[in-house]
Amino acid sequence: MKPQDILDSGSTIVAPATAPGVAAIAVIRVSGPEAFTICNKIFKAKDLSKQASHTVHFGTIRDEGKIVDEVLLTLFKGPHSFTKEDVVEISCHGSDFIVKRIIQLLLKHGARLARAGEFTQRAFLNGQFDLAQAEAIADLISSDSEASHQAAIHQMRGGFSEQIKHLRERLISFAALIELELDFSEEDVEFANRQDLKNLVSDILALVNNLISSFDWGNVIKNGVPTVIVGKPNAGKSTLLNRLLNEEKAIVSEIAGTTRDYIEDELVLEGITFRFIDTAGLRETLDTVEAIGVQRTQQKMKQASLILYLFDVNETTVEELVETLQKLKEQYDVPIYPVANKIDSAQEAHVRTFDNFDSITFISAAKDMQIDRLKEKLLDTVKQGQFKKGDTVVTNLRHFESLTKSRNALEEVLTGLDRNMSGDFLAMDIRTALYHLGEITGEITTEDLLGDIFSKFCIGK
Amino acid sequence: MKPQDILDSGSTIVAPATAPGVAAIAVIRVSGPEAFTICNKIFKAKDLSKQASHTVHFGTIRDEGKIVDEVLLTLFKGPHSFTKEDVVEISCHGSDFIVKRIIQLLLKHGARLARAGEFTQRAFLNGQFDLAQAEAIADLISSDSEASHQAAIHQMRGGFSEQIKHLRERLISFAALIELELDFSEEDVEFANRQDLKNLVSDILALVNNLISSFDWGNVIKNGVPTVIVGKPNAGKSTLLNRLLNEEKAIVSEIAGTTRDYIEDELVLEGITFRFIDTAGLRETLDTVEAIGVQRTQQKMKQASLILYLFDVNETTVEELVETLQKLKEQYDVPIYPVANKIDSAQEAHVRTFDNFDSITFISAAKDMQIDRLKEKLLDTVKQGQFKKGDTVVTNLRHFESLTKSRNALEEVLTGLDRNMSGDFLAMDIRTALYHLGEITGEITTEDLLGDIFSKFCIGK
Repeated sequence: MKPQDILDSGSTIVAPATAPGVAAIAVIRVSGPEAFTICNKIFKAKDLSKQASHTVHFGTIRDEGKIVDEVLLTLFKGPHSFTKEDVVEISCHGSDFIVKRIIQLLLKHGARLARAGEFTQRAFLNGQFDLAQAEAIADLISSDSEASHQAAIHQMRGGFSEQIKHLRERLISFAALIELELDFSEEDVEFANRQDLKNLVSDILALVNNLISSFDWGNVIKNGVPTVIVGKPNAGKSTLLNRLLNEEKAIVSEIAGTTRDYIEDELVLEGITFRFIDTAGLRETLDTVEAIGVQRTQQKMKQASLILYLFDVNETTVEELVETLQKLKEQYDVPIYPVANKIDSAQEAHVRTFDNFDSITFISAAKDMQIDRLKEKLLDTVKQGQFKKGDTVVTNLRHFESLTKSRNALEEVLTGLDRNMSGDFLAMDIRTALYHLGEITGEITTEDLLGDIFSKFCIGK
Repeated sequence: MKPQDILDSGSTIVAPATAPGVAAIAVIRVSGPEAFTICNKIFKAKDLSKQASHTVHFGTIRDEGKIVDEVLLTLFKGPHSFTKEDVVEISCHGSDFIVKRIIQLLLKHGARLARAGEFTQRAFLNGQFDLAQAEAIADLISSDSEASHQAAIHQMRGGFSEQIKHLRERLISFAALIELELDFSEEDVEFANRQDLKNLVSDILALVNNLISSFDWGNVIKNGVPTVIVGKPNAGKSTLLNRLLNEEKAIVSEIAGTTRDYIEDELVLEGITFRFIDTAGLRETLDTVEAIGVQRTQQKMKQASLILYLFDVNETTVEELVETLQKLKEQYDVPIYPVANKIDSAQEAHVRTFDNFDSITFISAAKDMQIDRLKEKLLDTVKQGQFKKGDTVVTNLRHFESLTKSRNALEEVLTGLDRNMSGDFLAMDIRTALYHLGEITGEITTEDLLGDIFSKFCIGK
């Protein structure tokens, strides 16, 4: 992104705001100082500048007299709009052809095509919300489970931004006092009370550490739990996977027209997504678990956060199971759950030989026995202690990295205070901490950073 | 569709109105007597019933206190809405997950999921527009070229409906008079002036015939011109196809985000779509054109409205060309255009041997020579006399069929008049004509017909 791009708020931008495809309606969004004037050139039913904000107007869009579509125009007068600029939303019939024609018309009359994320970027630059909130909008749009959706909503509506901003302001006061000391360095005065500073930095560190440790859970929320089912070819992996996923499909497809983006290998339990990694290659090569050695499969398995080891209880002895689990544990540093399949056809005496294994879940994938129990087990993994949870969850890698950098700087400040370091060292570390905290909410930004963040948005957002 | 479905206007219906997928926003449409009440149960920022029509309101949608999304609600009070009922459009963040959650909430609070086309069906039943106009909305949404778009817009805004309605009303008066004669049949009176009736029926027939003959063109507009390129394997078919289609792709993809539904094998020239039929099988088997005999390919070629016969000018003699064209013409009753390729590397003397063939277009697909000339040729086929054009174009097969049935009945009326047939025969034929004319605009409908028409709409329309 070039410098002028950020400053280019004088232009009026346009983009489709709804997903492409045939539908009842589509919405085109126009924002900028000329939004009303440009729209009035192709929609002449009314003088738009004389209409109230938040009102809707019916009429036709024409290109040199020829009707392009019958539309509804919704007017938002700045600053009472998403971007805080004048905004017009054109609701036309849901055809890509019509959307294209109307956008072409708007371009002809002086609008410019918006870049990815440019509407949100303008909203941010005009003070509608901070940077972390802007990023939460992108997360919200792409959220596909209850947990990721709730985390994004919470962050979009403020989340940890306020806390960080408040503590950061207090830290700024201290930084100013310490820098004042530097001006009087020959007189050996202390404007900044060292104990108060230590308390404040400790408070901030506590918050920052809390947020950092929420990231593991945030990552689960946002990206799901990568899970692998391994086992010998006759263990029933496909049956189990279909059993787990098919029910989900039935629930998801309840509402027609909303399932197009359904992902085949995802299971959502109580808002947590379990992503089953495709180890299709494994099926062909895994005569015995030893064959896991195949490199490509091994790499895929290393992405897993959870491994289910499925075995046919009738074909497996306790010794074999112990041996296999041992091998898996040596290679993979994630929870490994043994799942005994085909319990419906098993001899009770044989099953009893596994009595010492508390961790085994006994199921029959084919007969739909104890599948709910297995699901509980999956949920327990993420619920029980392995992840730190709370209302405020960091789901964004960029935030995590900035928080980590602030933590390091804040720890330096504490060390410096303990060692009675001079003010200039303290000031430097405080500035570093402030910089990285400010990056999160966008008080500190660079054009590169903004370009990087908003270019990941979809067009029209 | 069961009888109660049509009468079920007491329910409040809901569906997504925009295409699924990740986007800035998505719109959910709610229509019916309880639209405001139901929406107010999940959106409590304001008492919606007290707000003016055509206004927009910001707030949150909550499920038992938990925020589902920040949304904009647009209110339309019946009859000033699409369906003429109370309508709420909920503009939420463009995530399928959020759309699904909000719809689930609305269902929970008493709305019912709309069937395909149900919003438009309600609009029709409430007198917003006639049936032909309702059908034009579906055509408009799926139109993907200037010509089909213009035809749909024209029809949506009235089209030939008014003319048909007007003539039909006059015919109804005559029918009534003639039926009155039947009550006085023993007295041998004539209330209906036979000459006036003849003039009227002739007028209607002229209009109906005009509309019927516009259907060929309407079909081209709506469905495009199915075109096949045939030729020997080395003639350069793929190069030509890519040359024709690639330029189009570049134009189409000018505006990002609007090209997802681009169809690979379509070329749009001046608003007319040429659909290139895939004869992939042909490439493998066509050593000589005689091999066309392969049945599957032959069937595909029979769908074509236009055949381009492409040959390498360097490898073909006039005699061979004459023979091949002759064979093609014997088998296919559509225009066949010879196209001489590789003109860039041809000997001038050899090219001259084709001087007597006015119809040949000489091109070089590889060197992009005379491709525009070929495009003009394609356009000429549909422009020159082969299709009857006009402002009013019938594009709908159902209308075409009803028009044809009316024509037959109207011709019977004229014959009856010429032969001085008795009133009861005339009355029967007039009723038949009226019935089929009424089917077009929806004055005559059956539940089956409505069910059939609206079930082809997309959900949310």
